Amino acid sequence: MRIKVINPNSTASMTAVIAAAARAAASAGTEIVAATSPSGPASIEGHYDEAVSVIGLLEEIRAGERDGCDGYVVACFGDPGLLAAREAARGPVLGIAEAAMHAASFLATGFSVVTTLGRTRIIAEHLLRNYGMEHHCRRVRATELAVLELDDPASDARGRILAECRRALDEDGSGAIVLGCAGMADLAADLQRELGVPVIDGVGIAVRFVEALAGLGLSTSKRGDLAAPLPKPFAGAMAGMAWRG
Amino acid sequence: MRIKVINPNSTASMTAVIAAAARAAASAGTEIVAATSPSGPASIEGHYDEAVSVIGLLEEIRAGERDGCDGYVVACFGDPGLLAAREAARGPVLGIAEAAMHAASFLATGFSVVTTLGRTRIIAEHLLRNYGMEHHCRRVRATELAVLELDDPASDARGRILAECRRALDEDGSGAIVLGCAGMADLAADLQRELGVPVIDGVGIAVRFVEALAGLGLSTSKRGDLAAPLPKPFAGAMAGMAWRG
Amino acid sequence: MRIKVINPNSTASMTAVIAAAARAAASAGTEIVAATSPSGPASIEGHYDEAVSVIGLLEEIRAGERDGCDGYVVACFGDPGLLAAREAARGPVLGIAEAAMHAASFLATGFSVVTTLGRTRIIAEHLLRNYGMEHHCRRVRATELAVLELDDPASDARGRILAECRRALDEDGSGAIVLGCAGMADLAADLQRELGVPVIDGVGIAVRFVEALAGLGLSTSKRGDLAAPLPKPFAGAMAGMAWRG
Amino acid sequence: MRIKVINPNSTASMTAVIAAAARAAASAGTEIVAATSPSGPASIEGHYDEAVSVIGLLEEIRAGERDGCDGYVVACFGDPGLLAAREAARGPVLGIAEAAMHAASFLATGFSVVTTLGRTRIIAEHLLRNYGMEHHCRRVRATELAVLELDDPASDARGRILAECRRALDEDGSGAIVLGCAGMADLAADLQRELGVPVIDGVGIAVRFVEALAGLGLSTSKRGDLAAPLPKPFAGAMAGMAWRG
Amino acid sequence: MRIKVINPNSTASMTAVIAAAARAAASAGTEIVAATSPSGPASIEGHYDEAVSVIGLLEEIRAGERDGCDGYVVACFGDPGLLAAREAARGPVLGIAEAAMHAASFLATGFSVVTTLGRTRIIAEHLLRNYGMEHHCRRVRATELAVLELDDPASDARGRILAECRRALDEDGSGAIVLGCAGMADLAADLQRELGVPVIDGVGIAVRFVEALAGLGLSTSKRGDLAAPLPKPFAGAMAGMAWRG
Amino acid sequence: MRIKVINPNSTASMTAVIAAAARAAASAGTEIVAATSPSGPASIEGHYDEAVSVIGLLEEIRAGERDGCDGYVVACFGDPGLLAAREAARGPVLGIAEAAMHAASFLATGFSVVTTLGRTRIIAEHLLRNYGMEHHCRRVRATELAVLELDDPASDARGRILAECRRALDEDGSGAIVLGCAGMADLAADLQRELGVPVIDGVGIAVRFVEALAGLGLSTSKRGDLAAPLPKPFAGAMAGMAWRG
Repeated sequence: MRIKVINPNSTASMTAVIAAAARAAASAGTEIVAATSPSGPASIEGHYDEAVSVIGLLEEIRAGERDGCDGYVVACFGDPGLLAAREAARGPVLGIAEAAMHAASFLATGFSVVTTLGRTRIIAEHLLRNYGMEHHCRRVRATELAVLELDDPASDARGRILAECRRALDEDGSGAIVLGCAGMADLAADLQRELGVPVIDGVGIAVRFVEALAGLGLSTSKRGDLAAPLPKPFAGAMAGMAWRG
Repeated sequence: MRIKVINPNSTASMTAVIAAAARAAASAGTEIVAATSPSGPASIEGHYDEAVSVIGLLEEIRAGERDGCDGYVVACFGDPGLLAAREAARGPVLGIAEAAMHAASFLATGFSVVTTLGRTRIIAEHLLRNYGMEHHCRRVRATELAVLELDDPASDARGRILAECRRALDEDGSGAIVLGCAGMADLAADLQRELGVPVIDGVGIAVRFVEALAGLGLSTSKRGDLAAPLPKPFAGAMAGMAWRG
Repeated sequence: MRIKVINPNSTASMTAVIAAAARAAASAGTEIVAATSPSGPASIEGHYDEAVSVIGLLEEIRAGERDGCDGYVVACFGDPGLLAAREAARGPVLGIAEAAMHAASFLATGFSVVTTLGRTRIIAEHLLRNYGMEHHCRRVRATELAVLELDDPASDARGRILAECRRALDEDGSGAIVLGCAGMADLAADLQRELGVPVIDGVGIAVRFVEALAGLGLSTSKRGDLAAPLPKPFAGAMAGMAWRG
Repeated sequence: MRIKVINPNSTASMTAVIAAAARAAASAGTEIVAATSPSGPASIEGHYDEAVSVIGLLEEIRAGERDGCDGYVVACFGDPGLLAAREAARGPVLGIAEAAMHAASFLATGFSVVTTLGRTRIIAEHLLRNYGMEHHCRRVRATELAVLELDDPASDARGRILAECRRALDEDGSGAIVLGCAGMADLAADLQRELGVPVIDGVGIAVRFVEALAGLGLSTSKRGDLAAPLPKPFAGAMAGMAWRG
Repeated sequence: MRIKVINPNSTASMTAVIAAAARAAASAGTEIVAATSPSGPASIEGHYDEAVSVIGLLEEIRAGERDGCDGYVVACFGDPGLLAAREAARGPVLGIAEAAMHAASFLATGFSVVTTLGRTRIIAEHLLRNYGMEHHCRRVRATELAVLELDDPASDARGRILAECRRALDEDGSGAIVLGCAGMADLAADLQRELGVPVIDGVGIAVRFVEALAGLGLSTSKRGDLAAPLPKPFAGAMAGMAWRG
Repeated sequence: MRIKVINPNSTASMTAVIAAAARAAASAGTEIVAATSPSGPASIEGHYDEAVSVIGLLEEIRAGERDGCDGYVVACFGDPGLLAAREAARGPVLGIAEAAMHAASFLATGFSVVTTLGRTRIIAEHLLRNYGMEHHCRRVRATELAVLELDDPASDARGRILAECRRALDEDGSGAIVLGCAGMADLAADLQRELGVPVIDGVGIAVRFVEALAGLGLSTSKRGDLAAPLPKPFAGAMAGMAWRG
């Protein structure tokens, strides 16, 4: 099985973290194709960044369809463009926030999300409502780390995230932690050891859920609103995005 | 006051309908700047179309900021890119679905939405939940008219929409109708006369609500998640979308 | 256009504050008719006060209908008698809580309400649910100022409200403030300058929203439960409230 | 124990039906004081009727307090003025819709409401949401009987209500019926026999619930928003409604 | 009338507390049959304890049916097996959490639950949602008292519960307290005197509500999903639980 | 990896269907241990059957813990005893309804459940709310097939289920089907081929989701309410169910 994991931002070092997590999670026999958006923002930290990142994501989905990919992971915690990606793909497409939130609801009766900048918290809160997870999540917590600081030793990202996780357990009464950024994928196992509760990285679990669905022959429904886009012209710079039937 | 009304699709004839409705609705002293997306799909009929249309929309918002526009209307019933547009703008930004749904809740205890293709219904349903209007809307109804058929006399668009409105009143017990496409803007007054209930075109009411807010000095909040996007590089084809502080 | 703004309490000095805010907000060409309830409580600070105030409000609506008013604003933050008023009126009727809450949802992804006595908080909370705004409002905060203290320099009303607004921004993460009493209408602009976020007075925005609706020919739906009251006798002291077909 | 059952409309023959149902339901040792509103509408069939009826209701509550009543039943299915009445009373106050809806949720996993005119349906629907019963009620059904037709043999009220109840069982999959008007109190037992499912008249069950609460020494909370109204002057015709500390 | 009050745990001293509360609450003419589960856990403090306790509860319900009981109270705050018990019974069956939560919503606009161990809080929270009471309850608070400590003078149970109740009033703004364990039944009156707000023990109010329903001839609906279990064999140790038509 | 799939009813032929589906779904290297409840009802078709079935389920979980199982599937569509099972297990435990509903939400924006008897519909509806899936599921549909008829060629189970699935697609506008009984596991692939939309059997997807979680080292949280049951005595016939620390 070939699963394409798309980092919708343009930072290759972050794709490397994501790809490593995806490969570590994948079953034997699964090929992980990792892609960095050709046209994304350096990091995704708001509605605008997210909106623009969708173009690169959709290009990578379309390339994946040409290349015979069996499923996709959108590796940004805001799950940008998820429904559009599902229209464009035949196989299953999962967002990492979606996968992590649902998985957390399987393991604990309440979880907390620990994310980066406070301004992205609303994005997670909207996803929780859209996915029906708002009663399972007790709180979305921000560390005020910028996405690209996660990689920077000077930021003490690990320490700050660990401290926020501890507050989540103590103050929110949560039984599990969802890490709120693809760039935290390399921290999950270590944090889980330290905290003694499930710590869920969306990249790994999304890969496994796509494997699960595709392995059973379950694909994105092509009946109704997730059917392939209708063929029609797109103007100007987006002409290449037009769908051909 | 200068209000920019942006048609996120690329069909100029539809922009003409929208512009006429916006100008008819605007108060004396309001200048309507109507724009057709330079890079949108010919029509927006699904998640994919919507996602791609956001780029042109954001370009037009940014141009509007340079041109001193006081507020914006996103003239597509799915309100694509609304929160991203709010990050990019100083003045208020309203979506036509948002404006129409809220207005309907001011005039009736229950309303129905009458829209185009069935596959777009889910978009309206998601908006209703996001806006808190799901208890005020009794049903979203599709006519199975394609967006570009609205303009085509052969489609009998008016007749089919009128029939669906009548079913909404009879079967849903609704007290008002929300028209679910910017391209229906020219039908509202006539349908209202025929049906004897409020029939709300989002373009007109969104223009008036933007006037109301901007006229009182109320702008998009720049504290928190609607603050201007963070300056950062964007890669490749989207390099021009990067925000400069 | 003639818009009647009704203060459902009997305190004329408060009507003066309301009328000034309404006139400052109104467009050129709009006539504001301000009315003090002939039979209201001196202030409205609970369910009982609110319930009794509705009679005076409805009398003023009915007088307004005789006088050819085009729309109405119920200028008390609990929006007392709103649906009853809509039955009695032909034009649009807006409550100031309703208008302010909806407006806040157009400008920020989360807002706080800052109101008077703690015992009125539940009224705002019920309205938030009725209007579908409970996911947009992060918290209703009380200053424990009595309504009539707002006018009293000795109360330091402005200072206490400002302090509560600051707490709302810091603790609730809100992007906008809704002022929870018609008697605060004169403070909005000043607080907005000080706080740097939208501060919404319901009186002004309700006037503008009524203008918007009435200006487009949109009226209260007379189909269904907002149709005119059924003609029937009322007993005793309320005989005069009977509706005549 | 003395329980006052207040018919907020002015039709004495309807009070007679209500009083009979209340007395049939009351335990030995409970005195039922039945009151007809001195100033209500002849029947309550909309928001306006309801709003005006609250004055008479509150007068009767206040008289009841002077007369040492231990609890109250608001005998109109819209539960008009319920929270205001709770402020004014020391003992428990129940609405008949409230009591019947909660009771139905104890007896079946889903129930239907069968009421009078279609225009009152929205009132029941709002109550369901306020009381948290919207997931237990499968549908509110109108018979299009006017309230005062219930008493009129020519209306075939019983037959039309029975037919609607049957439709509720068949089409809604409900396990119990809530009768949506105090004027149907005399039909409950007979309909229950005929239908073989619980048929709940709010008058009887509200009396019993008030007995239950008051019998255990449980009264309306006087801490917070249901505390007695604040003493203050009321103007004009409502001067007599002012609360004295 | 004969009401069976079933303690689904096996601790007879706790049944004694429950029986005393039930008898104190019952009307003249009501016979209380108190039962201790023959096969329950010593106390119920989690999902597992609750699940296992249901067998003894159902046996007691079935014995009650043979003995002609008119209704039942499930005297554990998690309301274990409530819907199963309703299938097995003809008369009404109430859980003490259910009865207390609904009663609290009749007396205050917001209440708090004060319970035993933190790990049981989620059970109350799930019940609040199932019963539609989540908007009426402001918070579920744990004292970290084990159930069997309630009886142990060394635990200072009364003092710790009182302190938690005070925090509920101060911090949650609640107007009433629901006691979250059947073993607290003997504390309610005393706490109510001390706190000056309604303090609701579920045992007493459940007995009264069952009296109310059964007294009016209202029974569990036998149409639909609460009909008697379908006759069928059960294997092994549960063979005796098989239902016979 | 060893995953135990527990059929909580006592019908071995149904376990055979379940085991076959589980093995067909499992990855290479996963050992499926299938168990039939030693003390369950012959089929589970209501709240009572479900409640009693939990004992056998918990015994099998406990046996599984002794045998070193890495995770569990509760193979009955009502997910009986799920939270209790999670307390008793270290590894992940999934219900087949839970797994299937979440999976459906990954593949379509709306799905329908097609189940057996109408009286079990409420069980699925309660699960949908508990899992946060009520906005993703458009309808729960009953075929009125008894569980044990699924196996009986005379029942034309396949034909009736197929017909109900077609109605779901046509009337509900769903994009995917969730099969509402473990005994339908062998029909999924065939129905999917026929209908052209994802048809989800919970057994297979639950196995795969358990593999996914356990494979990544994610287990049931042992912090908070899913911690192991507290050690304490159980009385009488349930003495053997007591937890030992």
